[in-house]
Amino acid sequence: MAACVAGCSLPKRSTACGPCRCSPRWIGPGLATLLEGATVCVAERHATLFRQGDRADRFYIVLHGRIALHLVNETGRESILEVVKPGETFGEEAVFDRGVFSFGARVIDPVRLVRIPAETFLQALAADFRFVTLVMASMSAHLHCLVRQVGELKLKSTEQRLASYLAGLAPETSGKARIVLPYEKKVVASQLGMQPETLSRALAKLRKVGVRVCNDVFLVEDIGQLRAFCYRTDFSK
Amino acid sequence: MAACVAGCSLPKRSTACGPCRCSPRWIGPGLATLLEGATVCVAERHATLFRQGDRADRFYIVLHGRIALHLVNETGRESILEVVKPGETFGEEAVFDRGVFSFGARVIDPVRLVRIPAETFLQALAADFRFVTLVMASMSAHLHCLVRQVGELKLKSTEQRLASYLAGLAPETSGKARIVLPYEKKVVASQLGMQPETLSRALAKLRKVGVRVCNDVFLVEDIGQLRAFCYRTDFSK
Repeated sequence: MAACVAGCSLPKRSTACGPCRCSPRWIGPGLATLLEGATVCVAERHATLFRQGDRADRFYIVLHGRIALHLVNETGRESILEVVKPGETFGEEAVFDRGVFSFGARVIDPVRLVRIPAETFLQALAADFRFVTLVMASMSAHLHCLVRQVGELKLKSTEQRLASYLAGLAPETSGKARIVLPYEKKVVASQLGMQPETLSRALAKLRKVGVRVCNDVFLVEDIGQLRAFCYRTDFSK
Repeated sequence: MAACVAGCSLPKRSTACGPCRCSPRWIGPGLATLLEGATVCVAERHATLFRQGDRADRFYIVLHGRIALHLVNETGRESILEVVKPGETFGEEAVFDRGVFSFGARVIDPVRLVRIPAETFLQALAADFRFVTLVMASMSAHLHCLVRQVGELKLKSTEQRLASYLAGLAPETSGKARIVLPYEKKVVASQLGMQPETLSRALAKLRKVGVRVCNDVFLVEDIGQLRAFCYRTDFSK
């Protein structure tokens, strides 16, 4: 799971299936110990950093590029859990409990990463209780994000999830908005738990609330109306 | 989130939207400190223990009865995240991070609970690093459960989620099976992220894989066939 390690508050505009997008705040205690055993590594587009079920003997800090954390079921069908960006970490919580990764990690853009061995992480925790509280706060924030994602998946229709995702990308609070997707449409579909064709159907339904697509740019007639649509209750699921 | 506090392995038969159902193993360090500030309380059916967003100044251990942890969106629409049973705890992770509960807790059956103040919990953690590692393992297991739940919601159709839930309740690995739901149908529907009528439609579709309902008992012709259906890929979502 992606997170900043220092205890950070959740962003107000966090979207349906977005992670806890925090600024990098590696200012807490434990950092010196952590970096002792760390190495810097690079990986190309489509490279697999680890697979679901692999032994969690390390975790990562992203310096540059983006990583998709994905789930895979018994038939090999995949879905993106979230996308990790520079300044965020992923995989640290897998060190505890069963010691295996519960998701896979694949490179979207070429990445530069700090790789921290699990053993070093555990030593840093044992050495400083303040560091423990920061990591626990971070795990708690992850739990909150996942609970919110489950809520979105259970309580919203596909078009509402897409509307919520688009609204989360717009800085405007009223009037017209112009939204550019941060990733390819198929990545967004996977992140929202849809097939690409379901996303297209959901998008077609959003025309009624003033959403148009023009060369991969989403033009919203009234962002306030779009936000209101995210919370409508008159849909069946 | 429900969990046993001692680090426990996940059950093999855990279902789609089931929690980490662990046996009570309050044998770890920290227990003596924890119980110092604890009180025992009771609550009747339908009572609200706390609401989503309430300050997390305590957490609970269930001695008797069942609790529904539920999510509520901006319109008041609800969905059950999971059901907590005797020997499990809930709410402890909310103490960290923002200090508020990210879900509400409502009594299903009359309950008897141990109520532990957040302050006592933090003191127990500060006093013993072994206790810290057990609690971190428990939080990691929660994260894993939620990741699995997100995966089920994103990668399975409604009838597959229902099939997975039913298969998880059956001890048999092959042949005929007789399954009794642990809760009312509307609670199961909410747990699976469906409206009651969607559950009925999903159930109707399961007839083709040999599932029949007779007086609230589910009769499965071949549990192996039902399990195989959970992982079929030829559905659109």
